[in-house]
Amino acid sequence: MAGPGRHFLQIPGPTNVPDRVLRAMDMPTMDHRGPAFADVGKRALDGMKSIFKTQGQVVIFPGSGTGAWEAALVNTMSPGDLVLMYETGHFATLWKKLADRLGLRTEFIEGDWRSGADADAIETRLRADTAGEIKAVCVVHNETSTGSVSPIADVRKAIDAAGHPALLMVDTISSLASLDYRHDEWGVDVTVAGSQKGLMLPPGLSFNAVSEKAQAAAKTARLPRAYWDWADMAGPNETGYFPYTPATNLLYGLNEAISMLHEEGLDNVFARHQSHGEAARRAVRAWGLEVLCNTPAHCSGVLTAVMMPEGYSADAFRKVTLENFNMSLGNGLSKVADRVFRIGHLGDFNDLMLMGTLSGVEMGLELSGVPYRRGGTQAALDCLTGRQQTRAEDAAE
Amino acid sequence: MAGPGRHFLQIPGPTNVPDRVLRAMDMPTMDHRGPAFADVGKRALDGMKSIFKTQGQVVIFPGSGTGAWEAALVNTMSPGDLVLMYETGHFATLWKKLADRLGLRTEFIEGDWRSGADADAIETRLRADTAGEIKAVCVVHNETSTGSVSPIADVRKAIDAAGHPALLMVDTISSLASLDYRHDEWGVDVTVAGSQKGLMLPPGLSFNAVSEKAQAAAKTARLPRAYWDWADMAGPNETGYFPYTPATNLLYGLNEAISMLHEEGLDNVFARHQSHGEAARRAVRAWGLEVLCNTPAHCSGVLTAVMMPEGYSADAFRKVTLENFNMSLGNGLSKVADRVFRIGHLGDFNDLMLMGTLSGVEMGLELSGVPYRRGGTQAALDCLTGRQQTRAEDAAE
Amino acid sequence: MAGPGRHFLQIPGPTNVPDRVLRAMDMPTMDHRGPAFADVGKRALDGMKSIFKTQGQVVIFPGSGTGAWEAALVNTMSPGDLVLMYETGHFATLWKKLADRLGLRTEFIEGDWRSGADADAIETRLRADTAGEIKAVCVVHNETSTGSVSPIADVRKAIDAAGHPALLMVDTISSLASLDYRHDEWGVDVTVAGSQKGLMLPPGLSFNAVSEKAQAAAKTARLPRAYWDWADMAGPNETGYFPYTPATNLLYGLNEAISMLHEEGLDNVFARHQSHGEAARRAVRAWGLEVLCNTPAHCSGVLTAVMMPEGYSADAFRKVTLENFNMSLGNGLSKVADRVFRIGHLGDFNDLMLMGTLSGVEMGLELSGVPYRRGGTQAALDCLTGRQQTRAEDAAE
Amino acid sequence: MAGPGRHFLQIPGPTNVPDRVLRAMDMPTMDHRGPAFADVGKRALDGMKSIFKTQGQVVIFPGSGTGAWEAALVNTMSPGDLVLMYETGHFATLWKKLADRLGLRTEFIEGDWRSGADADAIETRLRADTAGEIKAVCVVHNETSTGSVSPIADVRKAIDAAGHPALLMVDTISSLASLDYRHDEWGVDVTVAGSQKGLMLPPGLSFNAVSEKAQAAAKTARLPRAYWDWADMAGPNETGYFPYTPATNLLYGLNEAISMLHEEGLDNVFARHQSHGEAARRAVRAWGLEVLCNTPAHCSGVLTAVMMPEGYSADAFRKVTLENFNMSLGNGLSKVADRVFRIGHLGDFNDLMLMGTLSGVEMGLELSGVPYRRGGTQAALDCLTGRQQTRAEDAAE
Repeated sequence: MAGPGRHFLQIPGPTNVPDRVLRAMDMPTMDHRGPAFADVGKRALDGMKSIFKTQGQVVIFPGSGTGAWEAALVNTMSPGDLVLMYETGHFATLWKKLADRLGLRTEFIEGDWRSGADADAIETRLRADTAGEIKAVCVVHNETSTGSVSPIADVRKAIDAAGHPALLMVDTISSLASLDYRHDEWGVDVTVAGSQKGLMLPPGLSFNAVSEKAQAAAKTARLPRAYWDWADMAGPNETGYFPYTPATNLLYGLNEAISMLHEEGLDNVFARHQSHGEAARRAVRAWGLEVLCNTPAHCSGVLTAVMMPEGYSADAFRKVTLENFNMSLGNGLSKVADRVFRIGHLGDFNDLMLMGTLSGVEMGLELSGVPYRRGGTQAALDCLTGRQQTRAEDAAE
Repeated sequence: MAGPGRHFLQIPGPTNVPDRVLRAMDMPTMDHRGPAFADVGKRALDGMKSIFKTQGQVVIFPGSGTGAWEAALVNTMSPGDLVLMYETGHFATLWKKLADRLGLRTEFIEGDWRSGADADAIETRLRADTAGEIKAVCVVHNETSTGSVSPIADVRKAIDAAGHPALLMVDTISSLASLDYRHDEWGVDVTVAGSQKGLMLPPGLSFNAVSEKAQAAAKTARLPRAYWDWADMAGPNETGYFPYTPATNLLYGLNEAISMLHEEGLDNVFARHQSHGEAARRAVRAWGLEVLCNTPAHCSGVLTAVMMPEGYSADAFRKVTLENFNMSLGNGLSKVADRVFRIGHLGDFNDLMLMGTLSGVEMGLELSGVPYRRGGTQAALDCLTGRQQTRAEDAAE
Repeated sequence: MAGPGRHFLQIPGPTNVPDRVLRAMDMPTMDHRGPAFADVGKRALDGMKSIFKTQGQVVIFPGSGTGAWEAALVNTMSPGDLVLMYETGHFATLWKKLADRLGLRTEFIEGDWRSGADADAIETRLRADTAGEIKAVCVVHNETSTGSVSPIADVRKAIDAAGHPALLMVDTISSLASLDYRHDEWGVDVTVAGSQKGLMLPPGLSFNAVSEKAQAAAKTARLPRAYWDWADMAGPNETGYFPYTPATNLLYGLNEAISMLHEEGLDNVFARHQSHGEAARRAVRAWGLEVLCNTPAHCSGVLTAVMMPEGYSADAFRKVTLENFNMSLGNGLSKVADRVFRIGHLGDFNDLMLMGTLSGVEMGLELSGVPYRRGGTQAALDCLTGRQQTRAEDAAE
Repeated sequence: MAGPGRHFLQIPGPTNVPDRVLRAMDMPTMDHRGPAFADVGKRALDGMKSIFKTQGQVVIFPGSGTGAWEAALVNTMSPGDLVLMYETGHFATLWKKLADRLGLRTEFIEGDWRSGADADAIETRLRADTAGEIKAVCVVHNETSTGSVSPIADVRKAIDAAGHPALLMVDTISSLASLDYRHDEWGVDVTVAGSQKGLMLPPGLSFNAVSEKAQAAAKTARLPRAYWDWADMAGPNETGYFPYTPATNLLYGLNEAISMLHEEGLDNVFARHQSHGEAARRAVRAWGLEVLCNTPAHCSGVLTAVMMPEGYSADAFRKVTLENFNMSLGNGLSKVADRVFRIGHLGDFNDLMLMGTLSGVEMGLELSGVPYRRGGTQAALDCLTGRQQTRAEDAAE
C-alpha cells in the first residue's frame, strides 16, 4: 500500500479492521481441544446469535462467504430441487451459478440491478407454484455489487401470503452488523454471512444461522455434504468446541468485534451507516452524478455505487484515486464493469473517515477530467452536521 | 492460558506461531482485487510450490484441512467410485468417513495404529483389482494421532509395480514443511495440507497440490463441487488473484512463514525435527515407557505418541501438566483415547523448547504418580548434545 | 478513545504512528549487549545522521524532548553562563525556564508568539555583547505552540555577521523529519529532537546532534552531568552499543520509521507537509478565522494554530470535536490558552486524512455555534487538487 | 535473533516481555493531554504504589534506570554532600561513579562481590559519623552483576540503631516485582526502579518511590535539576497527567503488566522466583561449578551468577549457547568479566522455561569442553518437582 498516511480501504468489504480486533488476533494460537478454548468458542457462538438475532443454531465455518452459500444449499436441498432466486446484481448471480453447479435447478426473477428484490414478484411466482416445486427462495439482503437492499420482512410476508412452504434463505454477507437484520423475527430459515464486512474482521470465517424448519429439512436433504454439515457442528458446539480445527485466531478477533458492536449498540451502528449512506448520496447528487440504486427505499447504508458519465471509465478513475490519494474504491462488476465505482462505508467507520473518502472522490473526479460539479463534499458535510445537531438536541432533552 | 511465562503448546498442531508470522498478519486487510494484492497472492502460490516441491497447480483455500480432504475427492471422483484408504490411525479413519459421506465407496486396509502404511499391502490389493475399480489410493503421510509416517515413495512404487492407474492422494497436514516431502518426484497426484502445523500459521488455510493426471481426472469427475473447485482457481491464480475472497491476513502470514522456512533451509528444518523426534523417543524409553509407533523406520519427527502404563489415565496426566506446568499435550483419539498422550515437536521449535517440554513430561509423570524411571530428560539432553557436536564438527571441516 | 472508526489524533504530536512502526516495536526485547543488537544500534545512529543531515555525533537518549533540552545545556554550559533565547512561544519559554533551573543566566528576546525568531534582532544583541558573555543562542525551529517557523539559516548568518563565538542550539522537536532541516549545512552546534512527531514514533526517545565545536565546549563545561553526558555515549556508540540500557523496542521502531522516510524521500515528506499547511491555512481563511502565525514566510507545515473569534472558547470547541467526531485537536498553551486551537498535520499523514480533519473542524464550528463562513473544507480541497495536478503534470513531463 | 523457535532471553534483564504486555503497547499513541489519558496515567501511578508497597509519591520517568539513580540524588542532595554507598558489585560501583560526577562526595564500603550489603558495617560507619556528614546511605537491593541480595530491612534497622538521620536509598532495578520489597514498611526514603526486569516491559521507563522525609529533603537540596524534578510531577500526577510528554505506549504496557502481577499475586510471583533460584543453584552445584554469591541468605531468586572453572572463558561459553541454542546469557562485568556468566530467571518465566534454560547451559558446557559433571538439569528438575508436590499438597488441604 503505497503512500504515506493511512490507506483508505473504501471497498465494500473487506473493511478497515479496528486495531482492537487485529490485536486480539495477534496472540498465540491455543489448543482448540483444551479447556481454555471452550470459553472462546462459546462466546463466539453465543455472540453471533445476538448479532443474527436468533435463538436458533448458528454455525461458524473456517471459509469465505461463498462457502456459507454452499453450506446453506447442501444442508437443505436434494439433487434437482428447484430454487427461486432474485437477480439483484452480481452476487445474486454468483449464488445462482453455485446452485446450478451443485446440481440444483434454479429460476431467476430478473432485475435491472438498480433495486432490491420485489416481494410482490416473489409472491406472484410462489402462488403460481401450485405443485410446490420450489424448495427455497434465495434473496441477497444487501447486494454488494449495486448498493441495493432487499426488504426481507416483506419477502417473508409474500411467502406467507402465498402460503408456500419454501425455505427463505438470505445472504447478509455485506449487511450483517451494518444494517438492521432479524433472523428470527423476520422468519428467515437460513442466513448466510461472512466475517470481513460489518463484523470488521479479515476474511476467513463464514456463518449460517439456521431455523428449526431448515434443520428439519437437513434431515432429508440428499446433496452430499461433509465439511459444511450443520449436524456435525451441533454436538461439539454445545460445549464450545468444533468437529474439526477452527480458525482459532479469527475467533479471537470475532469475540472482540462482537464486544465492540455491543459496546456501541447495534441500533447506533445501524443509524451510523444509514447516516453515512445518506451523506454519500447527497454528495453524489451534488456532483451531478447518479447513484446506481434508483429506488430510494432500497438505497444502502453499506455502500454507494456511483454511475460514471457516459464515456468515462470508472476503472481509470479508481486508478487515479488509488495512486494519488491512497484510497481503494470498489469496481463495477460484470454488467456494470467500468461503468460504476463503489464507495464502501461499512464496518469500523466514522464521519471524518467518510469526509476523507468523499474528498478523495471529488479530487479524483477533478484529476480524472470527469465532468462534475464541485461541492459534493460540502453537501455531505452539511448533511452530517445536521445529523450531529439532531443527536446533540436529542441528548439534551 | 493460565500461569506465568510462555505457554508450551506441545500438541501436534496447531503449533507455536512465530512472532514474525503473527506480526505479518497483524496488518490492515487489503483490497484483494487491487494491484498490490497480486504480489501477495503470487508469492503465496509460488511459495507453496517450493514447499510442496511441485511445478504443478497449487490451490489455496480459506478453510481447514478437512476441507482440503473434501476438495481432493470432489474434484477427482464421481458418485460410487471406489477409493482405497489405509488405516494408519484416527485421521485416516476420519478421511474415510468423509469419503463415505460424499457418496464414494471406500475400502480400508486395516492397521494397528502403530506404523505407517504398508506399501506391499497396497500393491497386493491393487494387483487384485483387475477390473480397475479403484480410482484412488489415499494415504496419510504423517498420522497425527499416532506419530507414524507412511513411506510415500514406496507407495508410489507399489502402485507402479501393480501397473494400476489409480490416483495417489496424500494427506500431509501434519508433515508438510516438517518432514521431507516431494510431490512431483514421488508422483503424488493430490497432496492435502493445512496451515497450522509445519507452516507455523494459525488454522484457516488449506491446500491441494495437483498433478496433471489429477487435473485431467477433474474434467470428468461428477461429484458436485463449487467452493472447492480447482478449475475456478486456475485462471485468477495466474495473476495472483482468487475467484472469491481469500483469507488475506493468513496469506500475509503464509508468505512470512515460507520466507522463514527458506531462510533456515528446508533440509535443516527436516533434520531439526528428526533430531527432536529421536531425542524424544530416547526420553520415553529412558522413562521406561513405550512409544506408540513400534516400527522404527516409521517413527515421526513431528510428534511422539507415548503409551501410558496399564491402568493410568493419559488424560489425567495431561491435566497435571497443563495445570502445573502451563503445557498442552495432545490427547489420545478414539481407539487410544486416554491410553496415549502425544508430544508435538513440530513447527517453530528448538532444542531448549524440547528440553522444557520433556522436563514438563517428566515432572508430570512424577506428580501424577505414574510409574516411570527418572532420567528421560537427561537422555534427551545427551542425545541433543551429540547432534550439536556433530554439527559443530561438520561446520569445522 | 471513544467512538467507532479511527481516532483522528490531530494534535501537533504525538502523531499517528504507522502500523509498520508499531509492529516493528511489537517484537521481543533483545539482549542490548549481544551481537545482534549492534546492527540495531548502528542503524539507528547512522539513520539519525541522515535525518539530521550531519556527519557529526548523534546521541540517542531514552527520555522525552525535555531531556534533550537539558542534555544540550548540561553538556556545554557552566554555572552562571549566559544564554540568549528567543521567545517564539510556550516551548521556547519552557526551555528558558529549564535553563534558569539548571543555574544558567538567560536572556529572552521577546516575541508576540505570532512569528518565528527574528535573525536581525539576534544579530543586534550579539553585536552588543562585546564582552562575549553570551555562550549560546537557543532557538526553536518550529514552535509547537504557535505554528511559527524560525529561519535557522538566517540565524546562523546573523551570528556569523556579528562575529560572535556563541554556540547555536536549535530545538527541532516538532520539525525534524517534517520540515527541511540541515544540521551541518546550517552550522548548528546542538540540535534537539524527539521521537513522537515527524519521526512517527511513540514518545520515549530524544536526540542531540552535536557539532565539533559543541563537543569541544563539552570538554570544559562544568554543569554536573551523568545520564545526559555525550562523552559516555561516543565510545559504545561506535560499535552500535550504549553505555546504559537503551529503549530497545523504540529503537526497532525508529529504524523502521527512518526506512519509511527514505522510501518516500525526505524532500517529498517536506513538500507534503508544506502542501498540507497551505491547504489548512486556506481553510482557516475561508472560514473567516485567523491563523495565529501572521508572518507568511514563517507559517508552518507541521501545524496550524487557529484563533477563535473573541468571546468563544477554543477548549469548548475542542471538546465538541472530540466527542462528536472522535478527533483530538491541540489546545492553546499559557498566553493563548483557550484562545487558539491547533491542528496537527505532521507525521504519517496524507491528503484524505487532512480533509477528514478539516471537515471535523468545520462541522465542529457549526455545532459549537462559532461564527464562521462555510466552505473552508472546500477551499482546502481545491488547494490540494491543484497541487496534485501540478504533481501529475510534472510526472508527465 | 538467529535460529528457529523462541529465543531464550536469559540475561538478568531486559526480560521476556509477555505477549499481553507487548500487545497492550501495540496500540495507537493517544493525546497525553486529553481526557482519556487521565485514566492511563492514574492507573500507572496508583498501580506502581501497589508494587512498591507505598502510600507515598511515585514518580515515573521516560528514561532508563540510570536516570532514576540520578533523580534520587539530584532531588535530595546538595553539591559536596557525602553519600555512603556499599560495594555489592558492578552496579553499585556505577551508581557511585554517577554520584561522583554529580558533584557529591562518596564513600564506599568495600565488598567482595559475593554477598549483599552488611548491615552491621553500615551501622558501624554511621555511628562514627558523629558530625552527621553522611546525607544518604545507598544500597543495591539485588545486585544484577552478582546475584546477591542486600537485606534492606536490616539496613533500616542499622540506621535506626545508629540514630542517624541519613536518607536510605535503595536500587531495586532488578528486584522490584520479583523479590519481596516493601518501601513503606522497610522505611526506605527513595526507591529506584526500572521497567525492563520484574515489570516485564521493554526498557524505557524508570521510577522513584519517595518518602515524606525525602520530599522534605528535596525542598532544600541544591543540585541543579529540571527533567528529574519530583516536585514538577506532583501536581499534574494528581489528575493522572505529566508535566512533559510521557512515554505513552510504555505506560499502556505498564498497566497491563501490573494487572498480570496482581492476577498472579505478588507473593506467588516472589515464591516462583525463589523456587527458580533454588533450582538453578542446585543445578550449578550438581555440575560441580560454583555460584558467585557465597552467602546463602543473600542468594537471589532473580539471577544466578556462575563462576567458570579457572582457565575457561565465560564469554566463549556464552557464545556457544547463543549460536547453538538460541539463548542469551548474561556476561560477567568489570571485575568478573569473562570469569562468570549470569542466568537470568526473573520476569515472565516458568518452570519449563527454566528447564530449557538449564538444559542449554548443560549442553553448552559439554560443547565448550568445560569440565563439569552431568546431571545439573536433572537436579533442578527434581527440585522443581518437589516444590510442585508441596504446592499440590497445600492446595489439597
